[in-house]
Amino acid sequence: MDRYRISEGAHLDLRSMDTRDTSAYPSLSKKKAVPVLAQMRRELADLQRVMWADGNHALLVVLQAMDTGGKDGTIRKVLSGVNPQGVDVTGFGVPTEEEMKHDYLWRIHRHAPAKGRIAVFNRSHYEDVLIVRVNNLVPRVRWSNRYDHIRGFERLLTDEGTTIVKIMLHISLDEQKERLEARLADPSKNYKFNPNDLDARAQWDEYMTAYEDAITETSTSYAPWFVVPADRKWYRNLVVTQTLIDTLKGLNLSYPVSDHDLSDVTVN
Amino acid sequence: MDRYRISEGAHLDLRSMDTRDTSAYPSLSKKKAVPVLAQMRRELADLQRVMWADGNHALLVVLQAMDTGGKDGTIRKVLSGVNPQGVDVTGFGVPTEEEMKHDYLWRIHRHAPAKGRIAVFNRSHYEDVLIVRVNNLVPRVRWSNRYDHIRGFERLLTDEGTTIVKIMLHISLDEQKERLEARLADPSKNYKFNPNDLDARAQWDEYMTAYEDAITETSTSYAPWFVVPADRKWYRNLVVTQTLIDTLKGLNLSYPVSDHDLSDVTVN
Repeated sequence: MDRYRISEGAHLDLRSMDTRDTSAYPSLSKKKAVPVLAQMRRELADLQRVMWADGNHALLVVLQAMDTGGKDGTIRKVLSGVNPQGVDVTGFGVPTEEEMKHDYLWRIHRHAPAKGRIAVFNRSHYEDVLIVRVNNLVPRVRWSNRYDHIRGFERLLTDEGTTIVKIMLHISLDEQKERLEARLADPSKNYKFNPNDLDARAQWDEYMTAYEDAITETSTSYAPWFVVPADRKWYRNLVVTQTLIDTLKGLNLSYPVSDHDLSDVTVN
Repeated sequence: MDRYRISEGAHLDLRSMDTRDTSAYPSLSKKKAVPVLAQMRRELADLQRVMWADGNHALLVVLQAMDTGGKDGTIRKVLSGVNPQGVDVTGFGVPTEEEMKHDYLWRIHRHAPAKGRIAVFNRSHYEDVLIVRVNNLVPRVRWSNRYDHIRGFERLLTDEGTTIVKIMLHISLDEQKERLEARLADPSKNYKFNPNDLDARAQWDEYMTAYEDAITETSTSYAPWFVVPADRKWYRNLVVTQTLIDTLKGLNLSYPVSDHDLSDVTVN
């Protein structure tokens, strides 16, 4: 999945990227992807099981996207199948009153994964250089310093045993229109429609610029960003699942050896 | 699954119960159960999805068992397949130094599920009337008062919107012997073997008495206990999954209606 990894210091131009790309699985289609994803999920579940038993590594998956970009759907499709005992999903919405009294990484840090576990952030500290920037919630001098904080924070986590994968699900403006209209048209999906989403949609260009800067500034060797084409949900699911599989495989996980001398033990 | 529900005030005799019972699925076997469980898991996943969207109900599942009783395996087999975004699994081990400075329900309460979510407790506050009692960690007068606290606590949770299902996975002494010996015999399972488990095994009778008293004292109309025959893993998984399905069905969940007037909304 290296094709979607953003190299440190690379120039990123989101608007020139093909959000309908399927080049990693050119022979697959929505239908043909079903058994492939099922197989990948089994592989991911097996890897997570070893990771949990091994207990020496933590995995943090950061998911960011524009509204309707597929964060919830990705979590459901990619991670259903993994033992929920080893996975913690945290959604970061508007900060609470208490959270606002702290620095913006305070509420994030407490949800960092313990060893043996996977943490998934549905939105994250990146909102503090995205929505916060686009809506001028703090002055430029404050949000522009945050890239540095974030690099430092993610360096801390990785130095202390956490592997970080950051994923932007990249959809087009047209695809978002279709998805929003689908939510309006289907009464059973109405509840997902939030009129505020239209405000962010009207700021699409500002958001793309904010994403480009954030990803460029914080895609590092130790905490890389992946920009995943996400107009086609089946493709997005395969790419995200395979990215997590590759990441866990890279950890060389194994079932641990017992701490105890069991040679003389009998069960009565 | 009413056959395994312990009625309020009923006399419970764990030692007379058949831990190899398969009477709820007499025509099934280990092999035949595989597709049945797969179908049940899909049903459970669908119900959880509505519950999450509905957002008005919380579900708390308490899992208790003797060592090797299958708590981890049950969570993995029953709940893999449910969207991990809506499920929180908390294991309660030996209390930390900080937790010991509080009452025993303090650490439990903070993990009670939010509306729309499922919380699974892998061990729970019941350890405070089980291991604590068997090992005399507090005097009788203290643990015997706890049934009352627990009934009150669970009453609070249910009155405020949480549905509680408490499950004891009931294995026999012989079955535990087999499982412990399997952990010793297979090097890849050695890490699961904890010599301390043998201490609890030697106190089997005291534990059964403590379980009987705890379940008798706290199986209420609003927070019932289910004692599930658990020597056969395939059967245990079916019974637990169906119990959760029945419980969620009883909540009459539905996808919510939008809070917004969407009649004039267009997406540009």
